[in-house]
Amino acid sequence: MTPKVARYLRDVAPATPCLVLDVDRVEENYRRLIAAMPLARVYYAVKANPAAPILERLVGLGSSFDAASLEEVQACLAAGARAEAISFGNTVKKESAIRAAHAAGVRMYAFDSEPELRKLARSAPGARVYCRILVGNDGAEWPLSRKFGCEIEMAKELMVQAGELGLDPYGISFHVGSQQTKTAAYEAAIGRVAMLFTDLQEAGINLRMVNLGGGYPVRYRAEVPEIDDFGAAIMGAMAEHFGNALPEIVIEPGRFLVGDAGVVSAEVVLVSRKAKDDPVRWVYLDIGRFGGLAETEGEAIKYAFRTPHDGEADGPVTIAGPTCDSTDTLYERSNYRLPLSLESGDRVELLATGAYVTSYASQSFNGFRPLAEHYV
Amino acid sequence: MTPKVARYLRDVAPATPCLVLDVDRVEENYRRLIAAMPLARVYYAVKANPAAPILERLVGLGSSFDAASLEEVQACLAAGARAEAISFGNTVKKESAIRAAHAAGVRMYAFDSEPELRKLARSAPGARVYCRILVGNDGAEWPLSRKFGCEIEMAKELMVQAGELGLDPYGISFHVGSQQTKTAAYEAAIGRVAMLFTDLQEAGINLRMVNLGGGYPVRYRAEVPEIDDFGAAIMGAMAEHFGNALPEIVIEPGRFLVGDAGVVSAEVVLVSRKAKDDPVRWVYLDIGRFGGLAETEGEAIKYAFRTPHDGEADGPVTIAGPTCDSTDTLYERSNYRLPLSLESGDRVELLATGAYVTSYASQSFNGFRPLAEHYV
Repeated sequence: MTPKVARYLRDVAPATPCLVLDVDRVEENYRRLIAAMPLARVYYAVKANPAAPILERLVGLGSSFDAASLEEVQACLAAGARAEAISFGNTVKKESAIRAAHAAGVRMYAFDSEPELRKLARSAPGARVYCRILVGNDGAEWPLSRKFGCEIEMAKELMVQAGELGLDPYGISFHVGSQQTKTAAYEAAIGRVAMLFTDLQEAGINLRMVNLGGGYPVRYRAEVPEIDDFGAAIMGAMAEHFGNALPEIVIEPGRFLVGDAGVVSAEVVLVSRKAKDDPVRWVYLDIGRFGGLAETEGEAIKYAFRTPHDGEADGPVTIAGPTCDSTDTLYERSNYRLPLSLESGDRVELLATGAYVTSYASQSFNGFRPLAEHYV
Repeated sequence: MTPKVARYLRDVAPATPCLVLDVDRVEENYRRLIAAMPLARVYYAVKANPAAPILERLVGLGSSFDAASLEEVQACLAAGARAEAISFGNTVKKESAIRAAHAAGVRMYAFDSEPELRKLARSAPGARVYCRILVGNDGAEWPLSRKFGCEIEMAKELMVQAGELGLDPYGISFHVGSQQTKTAAYEAAIGRVAMLFTDLQEAGINLRMVNLGGGYPVRYRAEVPEIDDFGAAIMGAMAEHFGNALPEIVIEPGRFLVGDAGVVSAEVVLVSRKAKDDPVRWVYLDIGRFGGLAETEGEAIKYAFRTPHDGEADGPVTIAGPTCDSTDTLYERSNYRLPLSLESGDRVELLATGAYVTSYASQSFNGFRPLAEHYV
């Protein structure tokens, strides 16, 4: 928690649940990232937190933006981003959204299939396109399955076809999974991309860009490698596979830029036991999986907690949200412990919750409104 | 799909994604339910769909309401419900919410722990309280884990304590899990409740109410027992265990009343393959798990689909939502098949989606707005 967030929570004590986020920390994270990867161009993954104060700060710092939808394109433009600094990075787009983004001046688009390529040729003629390939997600705490990306053989054919359709076959992207804790995942993927560059060069297609996606981790309960370790591993792999003919390097950090800038402040609604001699207490908060903490699904992302009783004797707990849905349980198997003196009405903080929280919140499940947001 | 919904979709063709719900069907379901269980009092589980047209229709029919939050209490009052017809059924409530509900005239409250009981004694003095006990959820497609309810021994002590604290120890509730397809789950739970009634009578506490919760199923892809089967099994078990001294019987249907009254209309955004010879196509819709279809988590609830090409040759598909989150995948292992001619831009309908959809929708994940709602 940054001193500014701590001060705001102490002085203002905003109603819970809410997110308090220090925009200066976002700037610090941006500067750390470009220091670690000076040759990379940063496209902020807007979906991590699309709040205007964050977008505006990043515009001022010269960042580019990775948008998942037309609405996110528009949010970037409204924050002052130039259209040329926006990549429409979702491989699944309505054709009407492509048309509108193209009309707004967006020139770079992701795809991973022939039908999408044909939509782009029709509705964004001449645009720079990059194909997303499937790569391993080992080491990611929020892995990405096979939903996005195609096999490398198909990517090769599609890039040839992109040129034939009047598009600019610009580059290749991949994603090693979110909250990726292993640098090896990037190194292996870069090797695959380099081979594809060579294959396509033989087919007369000169690719100019590698998009490394995001995934750079944030510290929750466990230590993670430093961003410098990722930078060194990635630049090492790029140099090994591309030599001096380095392509443009794009990275799409989301969590890394905003995650540790924010804190969710919540209230304990109830602490109870299922039987008198049950050693495990249930701690119910006024925010849960449907109030924004969606990444606790499967206990994937394990947030750290602060309570007013830290340092006192503690015991095992199951932590749950406030709704009548019992899937709205955050942690049951992750060995969380909280102070024995914790009780209804206590305020608790969930650290490093600046990413993938606010926009996930359900509009009104069980009647609860989405969490408030304070940017300081 | 009811004729009225079909007509609205055909004539109005509302923008997707949206829910179209036939309020007359809600009324028919209500009448079928009270015919199947004439001795039971219906408390509609507002969380299933809190839309005003539904609440207003049910007020007109004489229904009571099960509210999960102060906001749901207020929605019922705004729809014309009497405060005495509202049960505050969440066992986890902020004390400020209890105080406000009590001030508004709500007189019946659930609990399952001593700290909650003490809140009720302080902030809703004299209220009717019922204790939720843990029961088996075998047979439920959306089971409820141990989040709500306590062990029966503790329930006994708490009900004695309720009287000592000046509350009215009114009854016992349980929940056999949502989309419960086995009548035996209710029968077993009723037996346990009856024993608790007897034990408490010996302790001088005369309970007067059994709350059977909800869980009554809706037909999705698979056949489910008729509501008459549930009615017969439940009334049989009540008669067996309570004889002529039947307590008041409360039921809390949600899904059963509104599920099959609604249809989600969606658009196919992309149909693609991960490799040229991959037999499985990926079908991406403009609504997914974060757009309202939250109950597809773990592929628990399996909605049936209608497409413009039904009856033509089909093939295996994975069905996914529109966001960049790969957990936003609806069905990958449930053997869905869709027509081979399905393509981007086609409209599809998801049947029986009137429950647990609209209020779950994220406020803006990936920039997508919540689905529109049309009550006809």
